[in-house]
Amino acid sequence: MRISILGANGFLGRRVAERLAADGALGGRRITALTLFDIADLPADAVPPGTDVIFQLAAVVSGAAEADYDLGRRVNLDGLRAVIDACRALEQPPRVVFTSSVASFSGGQGVVLGDDARQLPANSYGTQKAIGELLLSDASRRKFLDAVSLRLPTIIVRPGRPNRAASSFFSGIVREPLLGLETTLPVPDDFAVWIASPRRAVAWLLHAASMDTSAMGLDRSVSPPGMSVTVGAILDALEDVRPGAAALVKRVADPAIADIVAGWPAAFAPQRGLALGFSPHEPLVDIVAAFVADDLESTRQDRAITHA
Amino acid sequence: MRISILGANGFLGRRVAERLAADGALGGRRITALTLFDIADLPADAVPPGTDVIFQLAAVVSGAAEADYDLGRRVNLDGLRAVIDACRALEQPPRVVFTSSVASFSGGQGVVLGDDARQLPANSYGTQKAIGELLLSDASRRKFLDAVSLRLPTIIVRPGRPNRAASSFFSGIVREPLLGLETTLPVPDDFAVWIASPRRAVAWLLHAASMDTSAMGLDRSVSPPGMSVTVGAILDALEDVRPGAAALVKRVADPAIADIVAGWPAAFAPQRGLALGFSPHEPLVDIVAAFVADDLESTRQDRAITHA
Repeated sequence: MRISILGANGFLGRRVAERLAADGALGGRRITALTLFDIADLPADAVPPGTDVIFQLAAVVSGAAEADYDLGRRVNLDGLRAVIDACRALEQPPRVVFTSSVASFSGGQGVVLGDDARQLPANSYGTQKAIGELLLSDASRRKFLDAVSLRLPTIIVRPGRPNRAASSFFSGIVREPLLGLETTLPVPDDFAVWIASPRRAVAWLLHAASMDTSAMGLDRSVSPPGMSVTVGAILDALEDVRPGAAALVKRVADPAIADIVAGWPAAFAPQRGLALGFSPHEPLVDIVAAFVADDLESTRQDRAITHA
Repeated sequence: MRISILGANGFLGRRVAERLAADGALGGRRITALTLFDIADLPADAVPPGTDVIFQLAAVVSGAAEADYDLGRRVNLDGLRAVIDACRALEQPPRVVFTSSVASFSGGQGVVLGDDARQLPANSYGTQKAIGELLLSDASRRKFLDAVSLRLPTIIVRPGRPNRAASSFFSGIVREPLLGLETTLPVPDDFAVWIASPRRAVAWLLHAASMDTSAMGLDRSVSPPGMSVTVGAILDALEDVRPGAAALVKRVADPAIADIVAGWPAAFAPQRGLALGFSPHEPLVDIVAAFVADDLESTRQDRAITHA
């Protein structure tokens, strides 16, 4: 089978590519071609004839889409439209795996969103993701393609370094102490967040690429079974894996960041995702241990090099 | 104040234009300019400097958007994007009144949709309308404009002649007998439909153009208080206004049409629309009487001319 990954140089794109290259197969079928792209405007050859699966992971993320409306619209909407049109030119409708986001919902600490919750985004990125879901459900109904849109939770633990994303601290409070560095926590310990690990996200993306979609009907969107956890529980897991590390996390209230993340849904009831075969989430302590196993050393080296 | 009507030659556009021209004012403010456009691609001067209100009624309707995906996407999506961009060029964010549709929902005979119902369209037209709502809520949040999206019910009684729209018969079973003509009813008498009269739709559009939007928050979409009625009740109202007329309606089951309309939501619980000041619907018999008063003679003349 022939697979294209759009946004292949992103955090998840690299992992999906590595995993597919290592496996050599998807859903029991041998991979004969793996096409990787990572630029804003889709080139004509990103979806070659005979493509069976497209991972559409390319996106301008939330902060950037909010800061530059035209850029977000061009990449997140026009980019997806170009993918849809490329699919229409293929002989067989390919599977399209699209990364949507919990940012397509409003919410808050008190809510548990069901599978039929309405998407009322509070930012342009979430708006563009909700629109992408609608375009892909319609394009699937018309048999231009065969889509699965995954509303990914906040992914922890991201490697790399702290950035200006409002969600940066959710990874930072694990990653930085494991690197021996102090970091700040801008929200109370009982603040809840809907998360998934990189391992789980990659597993879901591969399941979305190979699953039977006939049970999905008109609705090609799935809220996969992430996990609602408090910041305090994340710190407890960190402490389990590396006793004493949590002491490097300093409570520094930041109302600006707290206001943003307070609008995100803290929990979902992902019955449909479970029924469609998306694997349930591993425990928090496994997420921290997986970061240590998969990413800690490379993160340390990367940061040592760029600090040098 | 300066008003633009895009789609001004359509059924509702003409009525809104006539009403504004007759009133000379909107929301207590004198109208100093009324710009009317009705073509697919928005010309640069459709939204002149100083525009206060834009009625965006231009659309490729359901059957056409389903038959020609590219045309629907160009007019219903790119057209709206052009309106948004035109608004960004104005000094003050104008009010944008957008006609969305019940076709943006799935549903069926058994459901009553609440104001928080998820939009899961079963056709490309409804998809494009749901996307339009998302774009306009986001553009309002960003203060590019100040939108109200009205999800209009099936409008009865439309003047003119029967057409190939699946919904054509809902108007036909009133209009045709009042013209002395036989017509067919493709669904059972107990089939329910969510309707609004042309008079009510125009009143809602004018309210949307002049209301205070500060209570709407992120959600700029409204399901106005239409009315859920059965086909049998429509025929009873016809019989009240013109005894004997309902005998011209012949029951001829049409499974193809019945299948399409069976997917439309038959009822809404429009609490938010009522709270936002959208007027409740007049009784069915008034709808039939209003058609006789407003449209019957002109429809008779138009059809006599084109039949001659």
